[in-house]
Amino acid sequence: MKIAIDAMGGEYAPRAIVEGAVQASENIDAELILVGDESAIKKELGRYKKPSNISIYPASQVVQMHEAPTVAIRKKKDSSIVKAIKFAKGGEMIAVVTAGNTGAAVAASILNLRTLKGVARPAIAIPLPTMQGTSVLLDVGANVDCRPKHLFQFGVMGEIYAGYILKKRKPRIALLSIGEEESKGNELTKAAYKLFKSSPLNFIGNIEGTEVFSGKADVIVCDGFLGNIVLKVSESLGQTFKELLREEISKEIVAKIGAYFMGSAFKGLKKKTDYSEYGGAPLLGINGVCIIAHGASSAKAIKNAILVAEKFIDFEINKHITESISKYA
Amino acid sequence: MKIAIDAMGGEYAPRAIVEGAVQASENIDAELILVGDESAIKKELGRYKKPSNISIYPASQVVQMHEAPTVAIRKKKDSSIVKAIKFAKGGEMIAVVTAGNTGAAVAASILNLRTLKGVARPAIAIPLPTMQGTSVLLDVGANVDCRPKHLFQFGVMGEIYAGYILKKRKPRIALLSIGEEESKGNELTKAAYKLFKSSPLNFIGNIEGTEVFSGKADVIVCDGFLGNIVLKVSESLGQTFKELLREEISKEIVAKIGAYFMGSAFKGLKKKTDYSEYGGAPLLGINGVCIIAHGASSAKAIKNAILVAEKFIDFEINKHITESISKYA
Repeated sequence: MKIAIDAMGGEYAPRAIVEGAVQASENIDAELILVGDESAIKKELGRYKKPSNISIYPASQVVQMHEAPTVAIRKKKDSSIVKAIKFAKGGEMIAVVTAGNTGAAVAASILNLRTLKGVARPAIAIPLPTMQGTSVLLDVGANVDCRPKHLFQFGVMGEIYAGYILKKRKPRIALLSIGEEESKGNELTKAAYKLFKSSPLNFIGNIEGTEVFSGKADVIVCDGFLGNIVLKVSESLGQTFKELLREEISKEIVAKIGAYFMGSAFKGLKKKTDYSEYGGAPLLGINGVCIIAHGASSAKAIKNAILVAEKFIDFEINKHITESISKYA
Repeated sequence: MKIAIDAMGGEYAPRAIVEGAVQASENIDAELILVGDESAIKKELGRYKKPSNISIYPASQVVQMHEAPTVAIRKKKDSSIVKAIKFAKGGEMIAVVTAGNTGAAVAASILNLRTLKGVARPAIAIPLPTMQGTSVLLDVGANVDCRPKHLFQFGVMGEIYAGYILKKRKPRIALLSIGEEESKGNELTKAAYKLFKSSPLNFIGNIEGTEVFSGKADVIVCDGFLGNIVLKVSESLGQTFKELLREEISKEIVAKIGAYFMGSAFKGLKKKTDYSEYGGAPLLGINGVCIIAHGASSAKAIKNAILVAEKFIDFEINKHITESISKYA
């Protein structure tokens, strides 16, 4: 098994990426290939006792976070993200992990790896912490304008993810909408509802925004426009909440003392809501394994994303997706 | 000035509604009319020294929160929500406040009050607490499938709201999308972007989900499907965050003591994030004033919604909306 890691992608690259790879190398039976600027990677690797299962694959360019994806992957053929994804073309036992430009990762994956047989559109599936464990939300940004069939396929792929990676039995699949009844929703979700309802999937109907973090559904399906906004609102709201609380704490010395005593509680909360605990978000539906990590990934987040990539290969997720898609077509 | 209040709508009706009306009556130069079950309202009013500017207008039926809106308003012509809205038909100096079934409030308002001249679709505008004061998000549920022109009109109406009610100078208007660039978004937002760009409005472009609570924009425009989900995710996330923190606090006695000392900070945070501080959400674009309060409205929330209704009449919001809509048509 080989995992190609985009060493130059992400806010804290290459340092956090290399550190994460070193951490993962101890817990994984795979060859880890760091793709990117050879001397920069070597310098970072010099900080550790280099594990024997880590090697370097040079790439001279870097796609920046705010570059237009399709232009960037066309112009920067020797970028770490493009070369890592092309490397993963080599076969079923190779995965790629990147914390770089998400749009570029999606575009380069579709272009180089293609979609799985029967899959119309790939989807980014993000694990979400909920009141009852972890659920998965998809798509969070690979497809902006979707058709009902796309949403249905996202549900099929999400079920495989929830079953094998999150270890859910008969994952409960729901559509994200504005009311529980079949009649509630927009044109897209109402048509998708019909497809789900007439399938043998464990479809529990619509859920509202209030239920996204409740754990009521294991797989939450929506188009990539909505999913991306929901994800970003959620992330920023946690941040806003913390900042407002910090502001209030700073107003009174008594509150400061209280916050000190609450240290362990804040740490526990952080652990539960910290994305880096959850590994990366797979791009489901491509003929390969591409795990997209958060742009602000820490070493721990990268380590966890690498371990998720390993599971994807181990559990033959793509084989199961292809089977399900052909069964429900 | 008269304000008709749906005394039977909302989780804590009629008690919280009547209490809120009594609280508002002391701060307002308007006649407050409680619409609903006469004996129930009288019983509640009996708990206070009845102010002279409160009266009762009987209605025998109640539309429940989960009834299908269009069916309910057709069948329950003598419901408090329908009668309160019909009462508001009487002229420009009458407003209505309801914490009842939102869909029923929207449907009954459109049916009985009609839209303002030139307005294609009304929109529910919700004030949002941000890091820099208050912004407004619209539509949050009146229109599910929108066309570009609808979004543009929401921006025009939101500008009036932000200018007169939130007292913003040259309100900054933004589209909620998945990237800042003009090329980012779905078909709907990309077409709406063009309309905003070529208008004289203070359009600042797209904002992402991360910026909803940052205060970067004063007016955030989206379709009612997206807006409703964003609103509900945000509400529930605050709740989830609090529950997770409470769970962590309960694990250790030291953390419990800390939380006790932090009481004032938690209170400050609650005040900043408490929807009841912000009054209700107006249904903009109808030929009348309808303020929709949260279904779980407390007396304070109702009081604030009544005070918002007063401002709507005082500032002649509908006159300004009609002028703007005709100017930009």
